[in-house]
Amino acid sequence: MSDDNTVKTTMVTCTAPVNIAVIKYWGKRNEELILPINSSLSVTLHQDQLKTTTTVATSRSFEEDRIWLNGKEEDITHPRLQSCLREIRRLARKRRNKTNPDLDVAGLSHKVHICSINNFPTAAGLASSAAGFACLVYTLARVFGVEGELSVIARQGSGSACRSMYGGFVQWILGQRDDGKDSLAQQVEPESHWPELRILVLVVSADRKPIGSTSGMQTSVKTSLLLKLRAECVVSKRMEDMIEAVCQKDFSTFAGLTMKDSNQFHATCLDTYPPIFYLNSVSQQIINVVHKYNEHYGETRVAYTFDAGPNAVIFTLEQHVPEFVQVIKHVFPSESNGGKFIKGLQVDDTILSEELKQCIGLEPMLNKISYIISTKVGPGPRVVEDHSEHLLGSDGMPKKTQ
Amino acid sequence: MSDDNTVKTTMVTCTAPVNIAVIKYWGKRNEELILPINSSLSVTLHQDQLKTTTTVATSRSFEEDRIWLNGKEEDITHPRLQSCLREIRRLARKRRNKTNPDLDVAGLSHKVHICSINNFPTAAGLASSAAGFACLVYTLARVFGVEGELSVIARQGSGSACRSMYGGFVQWILGQRDDGKDSLAQQVEPESHWPELRILVLVVSADRKPIGSTSGMQTSVKTSLLLKLRAECVVSKRMEDMIEAVCQKDFSTFAGLTMKDSNQFHATCLDTYPPIFYLNSVSQQIINVVHKYNEHYGETRVAYTFDAGPNAVIFTLEQHVPEFVQVIKHVFPSESNGGKFIKGLQVDDTILSEELKQCIGLEPMLNKISYIISTKVGPGPRVVEDHSEHLLGSDGMPKKTQ
Repeated sequence: MSDDNTVKTTMVTCTAPVNIAVIKYWGKRNEELILPINSSLSVTLHQDQLKTTTTVATSRSFEEDRIWLNGKEEDITHPRLQSCLREIRRLARKRRNKTNPDLDVAGLSHKVHICSINNFPTAAGLASSAAGFACLVYTLARVFGVEGELSVIARQGSGSACRSMYGGFVQWILGQRDDGKDSLAQQVEPESHWPELRILVLVVSADRKPIGSTSGMQTSVKTSLLLKLRAECVVSKRMEDMIEAVCQKDFSTFAGLTMKDSNQFHATCLDTYPPIFYLNSVSQQIINVVHKYNEHYGETRVAYTFDAGPNAVIFTLEQHVPEFVQVIKHVFPSESNGGKFIKGLQVDDTILSEELKQCIGLEPMLNKISYIISTKVGPGPRVVEDHSEHLLGSDGMPKKTQ
Repeated sequence: MSDDNTVKTTMVTCTAPVNIAVIKYWGKRNEELILPINSSLSVTLHQDQLKTTTTVATSRSFEEDRIWLNGKEEDITHPRLQSCLREIRRLARKRRNKTNPDLDVAGLSHKVHICSINNFPTAAGLASSAAGFACLVYTLARVFGVEGELSVIARQGSGSACRSMYGGFVQWILGQRDDGKDSLAQQVEPESHWPELRILVLVVSADRKPIGSTSGMQTSVKTSLLLKLRAECVVSKRMEDMIEAVCQKDFSTFAGLTMKDSNQFHATCLDTYPPIFYLNSVSQQIINVVHKYNEHYGETRVAYTFDAGPNAVIFTLEQHVPEFVQVIKHVFPSESNGGKFIKGLQVDDTILSEELKQCIGLEPMLNKISYIISTKVGPGPRVVEDHSEHLLGSDGMPKKTQ
């Protein structure tokens, strides 16, 4: 390409976090707008361990919208991608008309190239769509100069993505409106609020891919009477109690509600017809270990939560991490039980008392947990200032290094 | 013992059936009287395959009430045994006072010896307390000449025992009264009503004994919001629909409700805190097989139900038994897969089509089902007329042959 023909390419790269719900979202009242049947609340995980990075480029020279996910070009016509692109462009147009009709932040008629990668393996079975759509919407908004409430747009990509638009503790408010404008995410407390809180993702070796959450929740809404009763009679009180527990940093209440809500979500899956099982025998054993550990100390020191798969997410306080990790290693010995078994934040070694081992008293299950990701509460999406981090080259194509 | 000292011993032997609930009982509103939080409905299994036999003897010479269960003397002071003995003696006294003050059907002041055996191994994990208490109450009533509504007494021994007081299809009505007098069993249809209906008990090899139903349901009542909502909002409509399906011999509706109610019961166990798991990976696989089998034919030909353990009880119609049993043998190959694998009613051999095998398409699980008991709907408790069948000798002690 000669200098004469140089076309300006606008390029922005951002990162966004994974979030894990402690009051679960399961079931839509509107499939297209992705409006939930109940409010939910999540904890944003730290991006040092788990994040999506997305680069969006726009240029007059691009002939069509294109997207590459984890190194592979994907179909841009996917309805949920189209929803996000359409909504961002609509807001950008509105903004331009209002403020400066001549402003062309990044030519609205221009096509975009999108490139996105996760820093964690898809095989880990961690829901990547929340971080992915949050990152997409956040990055597109920067490119097109859109500000304001972006969580309603992220929500239309993937429901739980709206919660990844903020750091710390985030609620997704149910909302009342049919157009979904009031079904949005709000930060309850920032990531700095509860520095002692620690999170362990126990990646369970899955035999087969479980049923996807989109079709799973559709079947649940259609068939589970208990899901309907949960949404109507249980969740709103639980949201209040959970927000109070988070604000007070009351770990025992936070942990109890987290476990109860995870169990109730999986109960509604079992009440679905035909029933859906996301918890396998390893998940059940993790649940047993947590309850036995808490019983041993006569207080709730550790909590589990499970999404639409067998992996456990564990919440505990910093001072209990080394011992509980040792308990997990004891019950789930792994052949890779060396440096590689724990990824992320360092976990100190410790020795379990015989008393504790006896109290746990469960048959060891070999190689059933692949590894543990040790992390903590983290911030929301960020712009990456270092241009060398762009995932697209100046030609608008993915860099070769990926 | 010389002829001069011979003391008259009254002796009665009866048998009673096992029942399996298709609308589940889980949770008491009154622990002592055993009053449930919702109505339930069961199918009485045939005693040719599964029954309890009980002999009760009474004699002036007996010094105390005693009981032997499956060859071992047990503690007669168990509160639930005492409830049944007390209630039968109270009714007998009432009856004597009303009808013939001098009548002493079997001396009311006399002590009883009770001997009871099951014709199925306890290790099979089949709830034997329902058949046991039904048989005890039925036999005691014969000995003491008590007639009338006995299910309210059996209920006080073990809740579900009240349903084993009748053959065929039986409902246990919730009742409204605080004294429990209207919480009783009623036959919905006799055993002759639906001769095509067949029942297969899939005895799953359990690793460990699950939590007992008495303490399990206590914890559920205390902690599961979904159990409360189920009892208040779901069961009464389901009872109506189930009774209608039974009366109409509408297998598809009967089967669908049976599976949904089993799943909902286990969902409330999972919603219990700490959660209770009765379904293991084998149970989950049986559930998968049933749904895949039904999907293959585009109609509901087979239904599962699970109580407080991993064993499955399968309902189907006679014509589908050979093929479905073959499907089970295919998915759960057993090293004892010969004559011994199927107990009870004969099941003809058949060959599975490749198409069906492919449609099922599940990884075989070796030796995970110990055996199958093939049975059908059966009658209620019976008196055994043949005196040689008494389990107690003329001395009132268990016969040596046991």
